[in-house]
Formats: sequence, C-alpha cells, structure tokens
Amino acid sequence: MTNLEELAQHAATMAKTIVPTALSHFRGELGVEFKSDESPVTQADKAVEADVRAYLSKHFPEHGIFGEEEGMDLKDSAHLWVIDPIDGTRSFLSGNPLFGFLLAHLIDGRVEIGVIGMPALGEVFIGVRGTGARLNDAPVSVSAQRDLSKSVLYVNEGDKIYHNHPEVFARLMQAGQTRRMAYDCYPHALLAMGHVDVVVDYDLQPYDYLAVSAVIEAAGGIMTDWSGAPLTLESDGRVVSAATPELHAQILKVLND
Amino acid sequence: MTNLEELAQHAATMAKTIVPTALSHFRGELGVEFKSDESPVTQADKAVEADVRAYLSKHFPEHGIFGEEEGMDLKDSAHLWVIDPIDGTRSFLSGNPLFGFLLAHLIDGRVEIGVIGMPALGEVFIGVRGTGARLNDAPVSVSAQRDLSKSVLYVNEGDKIYHNHPEVFARLMQAGQTRRMAYDCYPHALLAMGHVDVVVDYDLQPYDYLAVSAVIEAAGGIMTDWSGAPLTLESDGRVVSAATPELHAQILKVLND
Repeated sequence: MTNLEELAQHAATMAKTIVPTALSHFRGELGVEFKSDESPVTQADKAVEADVRAYLSKHFPEHGIFGEEEGMDLKDSAHLWVIDPIDGTRSFLSGNPLFGFLLAHLIDGRVEIGVIGMPALGEVFIGVRGTGARLNDAPVSVSAQRDLSKSVLYVNEGDKIYHNHPEVFARLMQAGQTRRMAYDCYPHALLAMGHVDVVVDYDLQPYDYLAVSAVIEAAGGIMTDWSGAPLTLESDGRVVSAATPELHAQILKVLND
Repeated sequence: MTNLEELAQHAATMAKTIVPTALSHFRGELGVEFKSDESPVTQADKAVEADVRAYLSKHFPEHGIFGEEEGMDLKDSAHLWVIDPIDGTRSFLSGNPLFGFLLAHLIDGRVEIGVIGMPALGEVFIGVRGTGARLNDAPVSVSAQRDLSKSVLYVNEGDKIYHNHPEVFARLMQAGQTRRMAYDCYPHALLAMGHVDVVVDYDLQPYDYLAVSAVIEAAGGIMTDWSGAPLTLESDGRVVSAATPELHAQILKVLND
C-alpha cells in the first residue's frame, strides 16, 4: 500500500504536470461553452482533467476518480481522487492569473491530502493530514489573528450571496478591518499562508472545497460549512475558512445572526 | 526637449527599477499604518515612491511630481509625473499579487504616457498617445465586443458602490455575461489586453486613474467618468473603461438609469 507521503508526492507531480496544458490555453484559444447551469467550461478544463485522468489510470488504476468535467469512476474504491481542473473558469477566461488547479485525495471518505496549484503564478500548495502544509516545499501556517474587527476578510462569490442572502451580505460588508471581495481558491491559499484571516465562500462543489480544506487544516486553520459542521462530500457548498477558533466563532455569528 | 518615446522609455525603466523594492516588502515586513481616511499605507508605498522621486530628481529635476504619499512638487512645470507607488495596498498587505505600480506623464495638463506595472507578475503595460499600448514590448489592444449582455464585466470597489449607491450596485449585479468583482488597476490592464470588456470603478484618485486611462486609450479603448466626460486631474473619481463606444454607451446607461 502506498503511504500518504507517497500519494502526496504524486499529487504534487500532477499539479506540475498540468501547468503546460493550462497555460497553453490561458489568454489564447479558449473554446468557451456555457453549461446548463450557465457556468462556463473551456477546452482547458477538459484538457487538464484528461491529463490527470491519464496520470491516475497509469499509476493508480484501481483508485476512484471524481472530476468536475467527467464525473465519477470507480466510486466504490477506498481511495478517491477529486479533481477541479480549472477552479475559477471565469477568471481564466478573462485572462486573470488567479485561477487554480485543485486535487484532493480521500481515503474511506475522509480528505487526507489537498493540493492547490496556481499554474500562472508558479505556486503549488500542498496539505497532508498530520504533516502540515507547504508552498513550493516551504512550510506555511495560518495567522494568529483572533479579532474579526482587526482581520483581513475575503468574501468570495459576493454577487451570489448578495442575490440569495442580502441580509448576510449586508453584515459581511461591515465586517473585518481589511475587506476584499474575490473568488475561488486563492483567498483560501492566502489564508493558509497567514496573509488572510477569514474567507467566506458560497455555492461550492466538493471538488472546490475538499482540496482547499485539507490545505487549510494542515496549515493550522479551520474550514467548515456555515453552520460550523465539518466538510464532507455531502456538504451544502456554503463554507468558511478561519485562522483561529476565535475568528471562526465570530464569523459564524455574522453568517447566522 | 525630450520626446514622448524617450519619456516613455524612462517610465518603463522606473516600473522595472521599483520591482525589487516592492517585492522586498511583499509577504514580509509591512509596517502597516492607517491614514486619517482609514486607507492603509505600508513601508513599501513610501519606499517605492522614494525610488521614483530619486530617479526623477536625477533625470528630470525640472519636472513636477505628484505622488500619493508625498504630494505635489514643482506644480507649475509643464511636465508632471503622477505616481501611485502601490495601487492596491489592501491586496498587497493580504499577500495578493494583483497590486500595481502606476505612473503617468502629463504635459500641459494632458496625459500623454501611462504605465501599469505589476511587480509580482513580471508585467509592465505602457501606453503612449499616438503610438499604441504594449505589454512587455508586445502590442496589446482592446476587444471588439459591442454587446454588454455578452461582455466580461469587472466591477471594482463593489463594497463602496454597494454602500453609497445601492441602486447602481443592484443594476451592475445584473449586467454582463461574465461578471467579477475586483479592485485596482489590473482589471483595466486586462481590458487593454482584450480579455475584459468593461470595468466600472469608484472612489479613485488622479494617481489611480490617469496612468490607467493612458494605457486604455492607447490600446483603443475608452475611459471616462460615469457621466461620460474625459478624465482630468479634477475628475470625481468615478470612472468606467470600455472596449468600444457601443459598450461605453450601454454601461453609462446602467450607471445613470
């Protein structure tokens, strides 16, 4: 049996393997289509997921795979790889380098490894349960901030929160000392590095939050749903990351007041 | 007398000169202070502006300088350099690489040259009146999009627009096909490259919008205030960039309906 550290090495290798594919489409031919839920998909999403599936079928043919574009294979395996080939397709198609590549590894339904790759920035974050988080092989950890009113707060998917939960949006727009509206995985990666203290996110899928949660938790932070419950494959996609338990309690109050 | 192309070369040189100074503070010791208007300032803002002032006092001691941190010198000169040492201090202090360096050159009150430097991305955009816009020496130009409902729309400073003009915010949150909330100069730079079609911005200072407007216009786009009037040192800081006249007319209608 392959141990966690070996699996993590494979995950990091995949995050590097897909970079040329992702960048060959970035700011080039996109082939944008809009899916039934109006979310966009590009040739890059499909090509990156194909790269990962090819790697996995060679190295781990018996492992399950759940990818944003091609769905689930071998779902009864104890090992499951969860892929978001391009996290932030709307950033990608507007030439914005803050799109990511996300890969999680679950064993018996529990996230053990998460990778956040940033192909256009040359950064790969990896979190492994029990061994900490790293950015390009250097250890990273969350901040010690405990006071929401002094915190750096990122609010992701603000437009969706505004439309669906205007009262929550109004409270968030009063919270934090430095507040930014943003999208996708990178604010969470900045939290894992200690530069951002709280990230509120919304309408995510398991392939969006599972990898991120492994990085956040390995870096010493907390990531749950808006009710404070742990994230699983069945969570409702409303998530929050916080550097400390105190911040986590304060932001849950803002979300649920 | 130095011609425009020579001045532009100096501007590009300054954008490269300040990179080590900016990056030496990025994700490091910040020395954050909050100014009377609650906007943050870091050691990097001061150090970068000092680099530019040193360069200008050596090469153009007779030119005027207006910098965000140190104010106006020699204001009666026909030549004026306008500096924003760190555009996006809140991004900078949260470890986000999408902060910029802005430098404009005005002659007799009219913007002739603009530079948008992105120190953490290794990108320098330059626009010179009459000679087009370039990114790292490659020509760039705006998109041909003419339909707002099919456009990529960036809304900058969304939280301030939400607080001060909730009805405008509500209309913006229905506009565009791909919509992102963001901040600072980079969405405008993406517009100059043709990846973004419209950018709405708010509460800017001359050192924020003058350099950007020179790049946008040299790339073939349009940048005005929300009423459609040209930008000057006296504009009210509500600005909009658009790739085409048709888009510009449609977004003005959204802003002023």
